[in-house]
Parts: sequence; C-alpha cells; structure tokens
Amino acid sequence: MSIEATLARFAHEARPSAEARDILRLCLRDWAACGIAGAGEPVARILRAHLEGSTGPATLIGGGTARAGHAALCNGTTSHALDYDDTHFAHIGHPSVAVIPAALAQAEQTGASLDALVEAAAIGAEASIRVGIWLGRAHYETGFHQTATAGAFGATLAAARLLSLEPQATRMALGLAATRASGLKSQFGTMAKPYNAGLAAETGVEAALLARAGMTSAARGLSDGQGFGPTHHGAADATAFDGLGDDWALIGISHKFHACCHGLHAMLEALAGMDALDEDITSILVATHPRWRRVCDIAEPRTGLEAKFSYRLTAAMALSGIDTAAISSFTDEAARDPALCALRDRVSVVSDDTLTEMQARVTIATGAGDRIELCHDLDATLPYPARAERIDRKTRALIGAARADALRLAVEGEALEPLTRLLAQDVSS
Amino acid sequence: MSIEATLARFAHEARPSAEARDILRLCLRDWAACGIAGAGEPVARILRAHLEGSTGPATLIGGGTARAGHAALCNGTTSHALDYDDTHFAHIGHPSVAVIPAALAQAEQTGASLDALVEAAAIGAEASIRVGIWLGRAHYETGFHQTATAGAFGATLAAARLLSLEPQATRMALGLAATRASGLKSQFGTMAKPYNAGLAAETGVEAALLARAGMTSAARGLSDGQGFGPTHHGAADATAFDGLGDDWALIGISHKFHACCHGLHAMLEALAGMDALDEDITSILVATHPRWRRVCDIAEPRTGLEAKFSYRLTAAMALSGIDTAAISSFTDEAARDPALCALRDRVSVVSDDTLTEMQARVTIATGAGDRIELCHDLDATLPYPARAERIDRKTRALIGAARADALRLAVEGEALEPLTRLLAQDVSS
Repeated sequence: MSIEATLARFAHEARPSAEARDILRLCLRDWAACGIAGAGEPVARILRAHLEGSTGPATLIGGGTARAGHAALCNGTTSHALDYDDTHFAHIGHPSVAVIPAALAQAEQTGASLDALVEAAAIGAEASIRVGIWLGRAHYETGFHQTATAGAFGATLAAARLLSLEPQATRMALGLAATRASGLKSQFGTMAKPYNAGLAAETGVEAALLARAGMTSAARGLSDGQGFGPTHHGAADATAFDGLGDDWALIGISHKFHACCHGLHAMLEALAGMDALDEDITSILVATHPRWRRVCDIAEPRTGLEAKFSYRLTAAMALSGIDTAAISSFTDEAARDPALCALRDRVSVVSDDTLTEMQARVTIATGAGDRIELCHDLDATLPYPARAERIDRKTRALIGAARADALRLAVEGEALEPLTRLLAQDVSS
Repeated sequence: MSIEATLARFAHEARPSAEARDILRLCLRDWAACGIAGAGEPVARILRAHLEGSTGPATLIGGGTARAGHAALCNGTTSHALDYDDTHFAHIGHPSVAVIPAALAQAEQTGASLDALVEAAAIGAEASIRVGIWLGRAHYETGFHQTATAGAFGATLAAARLLSLEPQATRMALGLAATRASGLKSQFGTMAKPYNAGLAAETGVEAALLARAGMTSAARGLSDGQGFGPTHHGAADATAFDGLGDDWALIGISHKFHACCHGLHAMLEALAGMDALDEDITSILVATHPRWRRVCDIAEPRTGLEAKFSYRLTAAMALSGIDTAAISSFTDEAARDPALCALRDRVSVVSDDTLTEMQARVTIATGAGDRIELCHDLDATLPYPARAERIDRKTRALIGAARADALRLAVEGEALEPLTRLLAQDVSS
C-alpha cells in the first residue's frame, strides 16, 4: 500500500491507545501553557493584529476568534514563540505546535468534544512523527524544518479525522499539503521560526477543508517520484510506518522542563538529583557531547538571553535553587548576580564524545573531600506519573498556579470550552 | 550586493520602462480575460465557496470581496484554471497568475491607482522571471513549479512596492516568502496546479503585510547556504539579475493564442499563414520537436479534451477556419465531425530534432501539385501592435466582444474600479 493510502486509512480507522491518549493530554496541557505564556511575545501580537477582521468560531490564544485556518496559523506560531514546547527526537521536531492548533481549530469549527480533539491530535502527532522519520535526517540537514514540513502532514490528518473524511478525500488533503508544506531552518533566530509551525497548522486545516469541498490533488503527493519526499531530500526510510496504529511513537515525546537551550537540559536534570546547596562546593565539572559546546557554552553570560545558553551559569542557578523552568528566572540581573557568578566560576565544562547528545555527567567536589557524580540521559522516557508531576510544576511556573490548575481540570474534562476560555484570556489584561 | 538586497532595492526604486508598462497592460487584459473565463471552473467555485465569510476590500473574480490574501489566493487559482494565461519561457513559468492577483489585492487594500498597480505588477513579474532564471532548469526538473515558487517572490515584491516598504522590510518579506514558497509539478493534471499559482499570490500579500507589521525573518532567505535556492535544487545562475532595472525581461513574455496544449501553438501559428481553405489539400506534414510527440500527438482524439492534445485534429480545425482561440471550439462534437476527421486523416506528424521546442514546420501539398511550406518560431516576440491585436481577438473569443471592449477601456484608464467591476461580475448570472 502507498504511504498516502496507509496514512489516509490510519486517519480514518485508528484508535489511539489509552497510553497515547494520556500522553496527548499531557502534551495538550504543556502546549496550552506554552501558548498562554507566549501570547505576549511580539510575533504573537503581530499575528493577532494582522488577523483582526477574520471572523469565525476558532479561538485565538491571547484573545479573539477567527476562521479556523487563521486560528491554526496564529496559535501554532504563538505556542512556538518561546520554543518551550515538546520535542520528538526521532521526528526531529516539535509535534504539538503544528498538530494541536490544527486539531483545536477544526474541533471548534465542527463542535467536537475534547475527547475527539485528543484522539485527532494523537493521530496527527503520530503521523507527523512517522513522516518526520520517513523524511529523515537528510531532509533536516539539507535545511528543512521538520516541525513545519512533517508537521503539515500531521496537522492535515488531525483535521481530516475531525471532519470524518473518507480515505480518498484524505489522500487529496495530503496531496494539497504536499504542494503547500514548507519551512526552512535558516529562519531560526527570527520570528519566522515560530511562524513555520503556524504555517504547518494552517496548511492542515486548509488542506482538509478544501479536500472535503472536492478539490483534487496528486494522489501520491508525498512519495511520487516528484512528490514532497523526493523533491525535498527525503531519505524515504521504509521502516518509518512499521506498526502504525499499533505502536504509538508519540509516547516517546519529550517535554522541556527548563526554559533554556535544549543542550543544557541533561545537565540540569542531572543536577536535579542534588536537593539543595548545603555542601561547600569547590568545583563542578560538566561533561557534555562536543556538539553542544558550540551551541550553549557561553562562559560569562551578560544578559538573560545569554544565560539561556550557558552551562556555567545555569548550573549555578540550579545549585542555588532557582527554578530553571520559569522563563522569569532568566534575567539580566541573574546573569550579573555576585553570588551566582561566584558559583558559576567554579564550574568547568568539558567535551566527552562517549556521551550522546542527550546525555550529561556532572562531577561535584566538596571542601570535605567528597566527590559526587550525577548523570542523566534525556532519551530515557519518564514514567507517566513523574512526567505528569513535572508538567504540573512547569505549567505553574509558566502561567501561575491558579491558571495551571484550571488548565489541568480543563484538559481532564469532556467539553472544549473550559480549555478555549483559558486560551482566550486577553493577554493585555 | 546579495540577491535579497538587490531585489529589495529594485522593488523600492525601479521605474518600469514605457514598453514594460505597455506589455504589462496587455498581460493585465489577458490575465483578466482568463480569470473571467475561468471563474466557472470547479476549482474556482470551490475556492469562492471556501472563502465565504472572509471580509475585506479585495475583489474575487466571479463575485464577492475578501481579505487581500484570500483574494490573491482565489484569483491566482481562478486565472490559472484554464491554463490559458501567459508564459515566460526563460522563467519556466506563468508570471501573471502569481503576480497580478497579489498586486491587485494589495492595490485595492491600499487604494492605489491603476498606474501604481501596473508599475508594481511589472516589478513583480520582472522579479519572478529573474528568480525563475536564477533557480533554473535544475529546480524545474527536480519537480518544482516555478510559477508557484519563483512566482511567490515576484508577488512579494509587487505587494511590497504597493505598500512602499523600505528595503529592509522588503528583505524581511522576501525571507518570509522563502519559508512559505512551495508548489510541485507532480500536481499537474489536478486542481492543485492552479491552486499553486494562488498560493504564490497569497504568499506575496501575506509576506509583505507581515513584514510591514514588524515580523522578522532570515535576511538572506533565498541565497543563504540553507536558503530557498540551495534547499530547492536551485541552479544559482549568477547572471540572472544582470541588468535588473534597465533591461526588462518581461517584454519577452508569451501569450497563448490557442486554447490547447502549448506544444501545438507553433504549428497553429504557422497555419495562420494560410488564410482560408480554398486549395484542394492532399497532404499536410507537420514537423515538430521530438519532445512534443509524447505530449500532444493524439492521432484520433475522441473528446474535446483530447482534441487539445492533437496535432492532426487542431491542424484540421485551423485549416477549416475554426477559431482555436475559443475554448468553446474544443468539443466532443468537433472531435467526431466527419469533415474535420477527413481532413485530420490527411495530416502526418514527424519529429525533427533540428527544430527547437518553440518551432514548427508545416508542408502542405495540393492536388494541383503545389507545395506550401509554413514555419513559425514562438521565440520570435510579436511586435506590440500585432500582439495587442491578437490579445483583442483572444479576449473577445474568451469573454465576448462587449466585455472584451470594456476590459480594454478599463485597462487603459486611471482608476481600478472599472477593472474590478468587470472581474466581480457574478459568474452564475
């Protein structure tokens, strides 16, 4: 069966496992908190202002409603603005920011339940991960942003599911997505990075709606000789769709629990093993994969932004009990704080190519002569209760305890409305 | 200077020559007639229905108004639905269907004059042709639809010009277009082919508006190591921008004067040298480039659609005085007509690789023993008066004499409104 037929049937027939649905609900909470926290970012404000005059039933994070496609665009962009949303390493991208906004906008337009949203988003996220694997590292290394490209196909399937499209129409939707999907990594560091996620979400909504209305497209839009994959340097990994519908790759999704560069996370997780700074620390040695040394090893950061790319300062922050999950912790003041800087200067960073990019090892020496070694591997998926507890802490750090609690309840309910009401809170108020 | 800086300055400073503006006005007439004639096509109806509820000042061909971006999407698609719009062979694409809808929608939104629209569209068309040349045949052969990809950059510059963007903002608009531009050739034969043109037009409008609002992007979105060109198999032809602003490549644009496959046009132009069928023709030998034999050499077409891909039948039609400019000439009845079929059966087609793809040679033998040889080369640009006269005939064949005359007057005027009133005529009425 062609990839397109496989994906179309998957969107039509799949029943996400209970575990996949549970994980998706965690993703939904995490995504919503990232979106609410990001709604004041300049790129989010620019898009909301741009969409003034768009009328429709779909909620805009930060306030207002719009056409479904526009809401998907705006919310995809807004939720990726802080770059604090979830990641799937095999997909090489961020599944939720492309898929959930499409599913949410389509769910609002069709009056679907929260359960139906969760199911469609799980199907879309799974598809985007599988397509990301199928496109492979070759696609990414060439310069494509899998979040946006593979994400567009996932968003399309999520929207198709909520529209109950027949497989033939879903194939047309995938074909339309194939001729629209885009997004370059060379935009990183600009507002167009989060915009890429929004474009993927919008593509999903538009492709599904137009296919339902009868628009035709290439039936093998991804895998044809001149389809999306071959034209976009796709590796065409034939194993990418093995077990689709039975095994849920989305369960391996990673959440960011620190509001800084991903390269620092393994170290910060390792340091989380130290409860408090009640030792007289003389030195801290951080070993990391060599690639990260070029990304996030600013020795003496001067600003909050630079602090997000500094092993030495964030290690000092973590050891001083500062919450690295909170965006508000990364300030210019923190970067200049004398006590933090004194601790920072006891941190050394070394490369160790026996570590993977997901691993870190921290060795702490104390004045009493003790030597403490802490390790962490981000590839080891957290068990569900631990993950839920971390998401709890993260959402509280991001949007405050009251809204985080309301969000948890909203995501556990049956109706969409408590969730959309939280998302719609006016960011200027 | 980088390509992006060159293009941004061009959009800001260029003054299209009088000849370029004259040609652009012909393109505008031709484009509008293709759009009006295409407004009843299924893909156009699907898009107009999809955009119901979009509110804004921009005219939809076939009736209604919408947001500028939506109008660009709808009108780009509608005007390419019949595949009867203009072509630039070096660009390897159709400039007007991507650029004019973006310029028109932006002109309506900003209240610009027809002169300003013409100037912006000339700048956008010129840029799309130059970017098409820069991307080159490698891009096209890989599977990209230059009409859509290069077209998106031209549409962006046209919109940027009408918004009077400063060069720095125009570079941001080009960066946004770089991360959005898309469109695959494997969609040919489906509704997604004209949709590709619409997407390019929409990208131009959206990118320019968002850049004006302050959205940032990669400053070297096309030419960066992982910019649009390198990631999309662009040839990076360094000569593509030579003489930009002084020489207007758009003057070499070709218009289609026959409502059938482009491969037949050189033959039909050659046959136009025969005024009427007052000879006793015994045989007609058509020589064409070998490539076209695989594209449009259906020996005995059974339907009007197949007739559009038949040297033998269209030669018989032309020699019988049937107007091959009129879409309505290509009917199932014509394909079955006994007199036409009898003449068709005297036509033979041969390959001749000494001809270019733009050339044809027709040799007619008569019962009286005469031998008439007719040749045509589509690469030889028609002088302006002849071109204007052909466009006159074509627009009359497409939309009737009354509307064609009104269109000619509208395009010669100063205000947009007579043009948009013609475009907005309800297609169902």
